Amino acid sequence: MTTETIANVTLTTKANVYFDGKCVSHGFTAADGSKASVGVVLPATLTFTTGAAETMECVAGSCEYKLAGSDAWQRSSAGETFSVPANSSFDIRVTDSYHYICRYA
Amino acid sequence: MTTETIANVTLTTKANVYFDGKCVSHGFTAADGSKASVGVVLPATLTFTTGAAETMECVAGSCEYKLAGSDAWQRSSAGETFSVPANSSFDIRVTDSYHYICRYA
Repeated sequence: MTTETIANVTLTTKANVYFDGKCVSHGFTAADGSKASVGVVLPATLTFTTGAAETMECVAGSCEYKLAGSDAWQRSSAGETFSVPANSSFDIRVTDSYHYICRYA
Repeated sequence: MTTETIANVTLTTKANVYFDGKCVSHGFTAADGSKASVGVVLPATLTFTTGAAETMECVAGSCEYKLAGSDAWQRSSAGETFSVPANSSFDIRVTDSYHYICRYA
């Protein structure tokens, strides 16, 4: 099941633009006070670094991702989640689009 | 004054991607039930058509826009708003980025 909408959020109006627009997100604060964002990755292969640990939930489309220290690309599709440790990184490759919710653990 | 955050919204998690990602937005429903979106236009010159009339509020960056039937490009910067009639169109050109809230009138 995918998360299509999230109620009772405080939305940040200015987008975050990464990699010349290959990734665009909008941040929000959830009802419980936690920070998160919704975003999309367009066709590209990118490397993201993490500060805090984060969980990526796919809400539409799909990606392949590879965590730091792994040699294996794994697929994540709508309704699926993967987690990235703090102070780490992951590669992501997208051929169509990958729509996500990023939550900080 | 710019609108940095909007409270009590229901956020749609899947982005709207227009013009190969030159414009990306996320829709939301405001506390009063009205539909709107937050988005960003990256460097490009684009033409958007409207169904319902809409109001574009700039929250960061700037654009130039030209309404259908006009020969004049006008600038819109953070804190400024312009309105587009229903069933019309407008051209927009952006050299850096234009972050906006789009509300339906």
